[in-house]
Amino acid sequence: MGWVSDIGIGIVGGGYMGKAHAVAMSAVAAVFDTALRPRLEIICTTTPEGAAEKARQFGFARATDDWRQLVTDPRVDAVVIASPQDTHKAITLAALAAGKHVFCEKPLGLGSAESRAMLEAAQRSGLVHMTGFNYIRTPASQLARRIIAAGEIGKVTWFRGEHTEDFCADPLQPASWRTRGRPNGNMGDLAPHIINAALALMGPVRSLCADIETVHRTRPSAAGPEAVTNDDQGQIMCRFASGAMGHLFISRVATGRKMGYAYEIFGTEGALRFDQEDQNALWLYRTSDPKGRQGFTKILSGPEHPDYKAFCLGPGHGTGYQDQIIIEARDFLAAIAAGKPQWPTFADGHMVNQIIDAAWTSQERRGWVDVEPIAGEPQPA
Amino acid sequence: MGWVSDIGIGIVGGGYMGKAHAVAMSAVAAVFDTALRPRLEIICTTTPEGAAEKARQFGFARATDDWRQLVTDPRVDAVVIASPQDTHKAITLAALAAGKHVFCEKPLGLGSAESRAMLEAAQRSGLVHMTGFNYIRTPASQLARRIIAAGEIGKVTWFRGEHTEDFCADPLQPASWRTRGRPNGNMGDLAPHIINAALALMGPVRSLCADIETVHRTRPSAAGPEAVTNDDQGQIMCRFASGAMGHLFISRVATGRKMGYAYEIFGTEGALRFDQEDQNALWLYRTSDPKGRQGFTKILSGPEHPDYKAFCLGPGHGTGYQDQIIIEARDFLAAIAAGKPQWPTFADGHMVNQIIDAAWTSQERRGWVDVEPIAGEPQPA
Amino acid sequence: MGWVSDIGIGIVGGGYMGKAHAVAMSAVAAVFDTALRPRLEIICTTTPEGAAEKARQFGFARATDDWRQLVTDPRVDAVVIASPQDTHKAITLAALAAGKHVFCEKPLGLGSAESRAMLEAAQRSGLVHMTGFNYIRTPASQLARRIIAAGEIGKVTWFRGEHTEDFCADPLQPASWRTRGRPNGNMGDLAPHIINAALALMGPVRSLCADIETVHRTRPSAAGPEAVTNDDQGQIMCRFASGAMGHLFISRVATGRKMGYAYEIFGTEGALRFDQEDQNALWLYRTSDPKGRQGFTKILSGPEHPDYKAFCLGPGHGTGYQDQIIIEARDFLAAIAAGKPQWPTFADGHMVNQIIDAAWTSQERRGWVDVEPIAGEPQPA
Amino acid sequence: MGWVSDIGIGIVGGGYMGKAHAVAMSAVAAVFDTALRPRLEIICTTTPEGAAEKARQFGFARATDDWRQLVTDPRVDAVVIASPQDTHKAITLAALAAGKHVFCEKPLGLGSAESRAMLEAAQRSGLVHMTGFNYIRTPASQLARRIIAAGEIGKVTWFRGEHTEDFCADPLQPASWRTRGRPNGNMGDLAPHIINAALALMGPVRSLCADIETVHRTRPSAAGPEAVTNDDQGQIMCRFASGAMGHLFISRVATGRKMGYAYEIFGTEGALRFDQEDQNALWLYRTSDPKGRQGFTKILSGPEHPDYKAFCLGPGHGTGYQDQIIIEARDFLAAIAAGKPQWPTFADGHMVNQIIDAAWTSQERRGWVDVEPIAGEPQPA
Repeated sequence: MGWVSDIGIGIVGGGYMGKAHAVAMSAVAAVFDTALRPRLEIICTTTPEGAAEKARQFGFARATDDWRQLVTDPRVDAVVIASPQDTHKAITLAALAAGKHVFCEKPLGLGSAESRAMLEAAQRSGLVHMTGFNYIRTPASQLARRIIAAGEIGKVTWFRGEHTEDFCADPLQPASWRTRGRPNGNMGDLAPHIINAALALMGPVRSLCADIETVHRTRPSAAGPEAVTNDDQGQIMCRFASGAMGHLFISRVATGRKMGYAYEIFGTEGALRFDQEDQNALWLYRTSDPKGRQGFTKILSGPEHPDYKAFCLGPGHGTGYQDQIIIEARDFLAAIAAGKPQWPTFADGHMVNQIIDAAWTSQERRGWVDVEPIAGEPQPA
Repeated sequence: MGWVSDIGIGIVGGGYMGKAHAVAMSAVAAVFDTALRPRLEIICTTTPEGAAEKARQFGFARATDDWRQLVTDPRVDAVVIASPQDTHKAITLAALAAGKHVFCEKPLGLGSAESRAMLEAAQRSGLVHMTGFNYIRTPASQLARRIIAAGEIGKVTWFRGEHTEDFCADPLQPASWRTRGRPNGNMGDLAPHIINAALALMGPVRSLCADIETVHRTRPSAAGPEAVTNDDQGQIMCRFASGAMGHLFISRVATGRKMGYAYEIFGTEGALRFDQEDQNALWLYRTSDPKGRQGFTKILSGPEHPDYKAFCLGPGHGTGYQDQIIIEARDFLAAIAAGKPQWPTFADGHMVNQIIDAAWTSQERRGWVDVEPIAGEPQPA
Repeated sequence: MGWVSDIGIGIVGGGYMGKAHAVAMSAVAAVFDTALRPRLEIICTTTPEGAAEKARQFGFARATDDWRQLVTDPRVDAVVIASPQDTHKAITLAALAAGKHVFCEKPLGLGSAESRAMLEAAQRSGLVHMTGFNYIRTPASQLARRIIAAGEIGKVTWFRGEHTEDFCADPLQPASWRTRGRPNGNMGDLAPHIINAALALMGPVRSLCADIETVHRTRPSAAGPEAVTNDDQGQIMCRFASGAMGHLFISRVATGRKMGYAYEIFGTEGALRFDQEDQNALWLYRTSDPKGRQGFTKILSGPEHPDYKAFCLGPGHGTGYQDQIIIEARDFLAAIAAGKPQWPTFADGHMVNQIIDAAWTSQERRGWVDVEPIAGEPQPA
Repeated sequence: MGWVSDIGIGIVGGGYMGKAHAVAMSAVAAVFDTALRPRLEIICTTTPEGAAEKARQFGFARATDDWRQLVTDPRVDAVVIASPQDTHKAITLAALAAGKHVFCEKPLGLGSAESRAMLEAAQRSGLVHMTGFNYIRTPASQLARRIIAAGEIGKVTWFRGEHTEDFCADPLQPASWRTRGRPNGNMGDLAPHIINAALALMGPVRSLCADIETVHRTRPSAAGPEAVTNDDQGQIMCRFASGAMGHLFISRVATGRKMGYAYEIFGTEGALRFDQEDQNALWLYRTSDPKGRQGFTKILSGPEHPDYKAFCLGPGHGTGYQDQIIIEARDFLAAIAAGKPQWPTFADGHMVNQIIDAAWTSQERRGWVDVEPIAGEPQPA
């Protein structure tokens, strides 16, 4: 229909995250009544047949196995990169060079050297760039950010964050891409989300001291035991620029934890607790409540909270994983429509990588290391 | 693209539920790779302008303020009825007469007389008919049904269900359509979902004894206090055909409850607990666990559970309200593709109405009443 | 030592409850610095040897197998009756006749005819009489009573109480005293505590409608299957004198529930939830909390709450089952010292029996029955 | 009565802990039917009047303000030290010299130099010595120890412990003894319990890296702002001798936490979670549960678990803070009766102090430090 502005979308990657973004782009205009409305132009996966199949399922007009074709497609205005992290930099640079806006999944490239290059290219381009940190988009975590920013819990004195899952907890689980190469390890693959949360909720980290290890050093494989070449779990003690003390724990061998993206924050006037396994609840403690009536209050997500009511008018009815991706799509489209950056940009993705690099440095030195601030370091908003 | 079979969808209603179904029809093919793929043909709301606006937002090709035009539109194959319940019967009968498959939101018409007529027309038509009971579609509640059906908790001896919300809890909340007319009351509007859950999990109800009341008998209005002409809360003691004892509580004045669709089930070999406010968790107790290690286990929804992995491969990552509607859309399309009924049909919607009618009869008689089985009464599957 | 007033205690019963009261009488003076300090004079059990053994373990000066000797012992000032309920009336009447204060465990005799006689005798005697409803003595449930009485949750519109345990849930559990005779059944033995809670929190019940059943009708025994002669579970719909609607569920076959003494209360300005399985937490919802920050607050028992700080100065450190009995002992001693009745008196025990009798009447009539108020009916305090 | 062996008890300290031990000694024989039965001989507090008053309340035969008199009293066989930690060493040494068994509250003296001297004297004496770590005595935490020791959760790979309370969270709380002197600080006063738990559950710590800070550096006082001379919160990364990675967080400024003695343990075949704020629940995850039925099971304390049934035959009925002290008293008496050491001895108290000292060393060096094993280092049992 002619009365709306639409925008051509290309998605690189047809796996788990590629599908999530495809669904999000199909639904986002109806959910949020966005100014720009996605046209699903082209999807790229690793084979022509696979790409055609995904195009059919997800509703794209065209398919390709060559991301270069996608990023230069004249009907594509914006590119969503949901392919493995070793492809992020090349695709991003090519897409920016072709004048396309870029949304890139976390982690932003293979480390901070790549993410720095991606950030600089994006800043030079004047185009919109975003990093895919979806978990911080739940209504509950957005509410947490607002509560802290508004000073409702006073000055924060302690932050504890974790991202714990158990997909590698079984020592008999065979070797795979997951157990090969640092970028696919626990710090490379799992840590970025909760580091992003720490930055979003608390602001920059100034120093840290890490302990990282490979718990299961070999894995079964058809050819016999294979050495695991990346890490299974790690912890980071840190100090934020605000002065607050913090701790992060990341593990892919945390038996029993399925989606342990969780944080606990103490302030001088209150406290917050959140666990993604019950993503529609935020726990708030207020020192201003009457004596004898104080305690942690379980706040259920509802229409008073950010982005909730587009999904549901009833409080407590709940949003889910896919909805987080729809919120990301809304933000990306809004940034393009407004022509200005939308948190979290590549700068945020890069800051996360810096902290991961610092953790590895700390691990090697067995001590504390400083994290350098980056120019124009974004603040939580 | 020519290689898929698609199907023309018309939606009657552009409010809360109309939107939910529009989003679901936009997303369902990508989520589930359905055999039939929806084309959003036409939406009907109460004014031409409103309908056009909704068509634009939701991506429909056409708009109308006349549902008769919609149900007879030659490009429409299936109709989703998400308009007020006093319109359900007329639209359904016209749509069936026009040869369209019908999905109708709960409650199915204004009572059991209407739902009986709708059911009979649907059965005569040979077309697909479904009732919109979305909450029973969560992976957790589908899992509960399977656990019971498989005998994992033995013979069920007790069922307690509730649907509690607090949208009318404030006595100063003004009079509105919600406080006028029995169909908009607590039993008419809120009870159907949990009655459906009771039937789905436990099978038919054979007798019941109810207590129903209007807690706040007048409401403020611009013209002064207005009498409330429907009910605020009600409870039902019941016996199931299986012999199990049960209790249902439904309230729109349950202060603090936001989405209290909840149940608790005791069996001879285990027990189940569920609360929609944490819709990704099902609590299971097993008498077969070792002595001293028994307790309620919090099972997080995951890819082993029904319909979960289409939304997310990671366990505990969670589905939400909108996803339930997408699952309904998948079921509706699958029923049409297969040419056979899909639970819950209009028979299920009608059985729910029978129980509501019986509760009112019990309230009038102040005693127990029997609930007659209907021919071809569906069993939980 | 000469500077304190002490009081001679006799305990009838050396089982579970007799022990709990013996421990309580040993500890209460140190915990609460009571004006009257117990001397453990004599304990009565069913055999001389058993009584001597219990006297040694619990620290009583003397032992007997004849409760008549105990109640007339000149060094005994007050009697605690913790023997089976069919002995309550005779012991009580004899003890009162001998001028002894009486604390009698629930249920108060074999039914309301007995409890009425016990109440009348106690009232005539001018002596202190109490009924052993220990669960309502937790700091959390005492706090709940205060919150309701102070109007903090406004006018109460709904009360749901349950006492669910699973000690008879296994159908293969052999026949025993528990499965023989109405007084030992679910309504006779398990229901009194939660009915007491309903009265304590809500005030008198005016009418009710019950459904009671024996789930497992035979039990294994050495001589083959034995008929169960009492009930396993029951539910009661009720209306309180206040006008509030209520529901009680009592079950000894509630698989998975270990101490399901629990209630949920909705009012016009808030709500309460409590479950004895986490007895140090009371959940409070306040409509006066800011929009978007409302939810159930988990209040941990602490020194601001009734009777807590005698056990522990630190909040959240927790009291347990035995501490409830110590609080009862404190109340009994305080009532004797003050020479005035202490809630819950025999009147409260009798009111509970009235409701149980009314439930059986309702079961027989299959309908609603009224509950007559008793003269001088106590109010919750 | 002549037929039991009794034992004379002296308690030093009439405050919070002195009272708890006095109550425990009054109740323990009745609760556990101990071989040795306490006679409350003498209590020592700081003034003669105060001591006499406490003797009266707690039921001691005599009172004194001179602990030397108490430890040499010929009717005293065993001494419980519940006075401030700077008195522990002198009283202990004198009591041992006088041939008395000694139970000393945590922390064991003012640091590891004192605790080493106390341990050596105790070992030379051949008398019974115990340290007062009561929280590890709950049935739930005893069960956790057994589950780990039995290998039910496989090889442990991660331990996270915390002891968080908020009694100093308010920055406007005035200066007091709590804010003066390292032994009264967060590490000195609050950390020992959770360090003890770590050792009890996991075995010895081999190395650690700590970060400790004073959050509120001045406190109001009558004379104006007063410098705080001890610490408010601290965290410790550690490695256990078993190879497992660990983290401890201790804070007295953890707003909202009342009794945050909590731990979370991941193993290759399961996981455990515990929080003292719900001390009657232990959460267990088993990888051996069927696929799709796995999750954390909430095990309520019950008679199958250590020491529970002495307090209550019914599962889920719950024990509390005071009951932990009664269990300690039982253990102390049992050790004396058996003439052999009872965990946790002074060696355990000393090991805790070693770790606190190591944490301070780490804080000064800003890096990792090793913790030396001590001779005859006890293992968790």
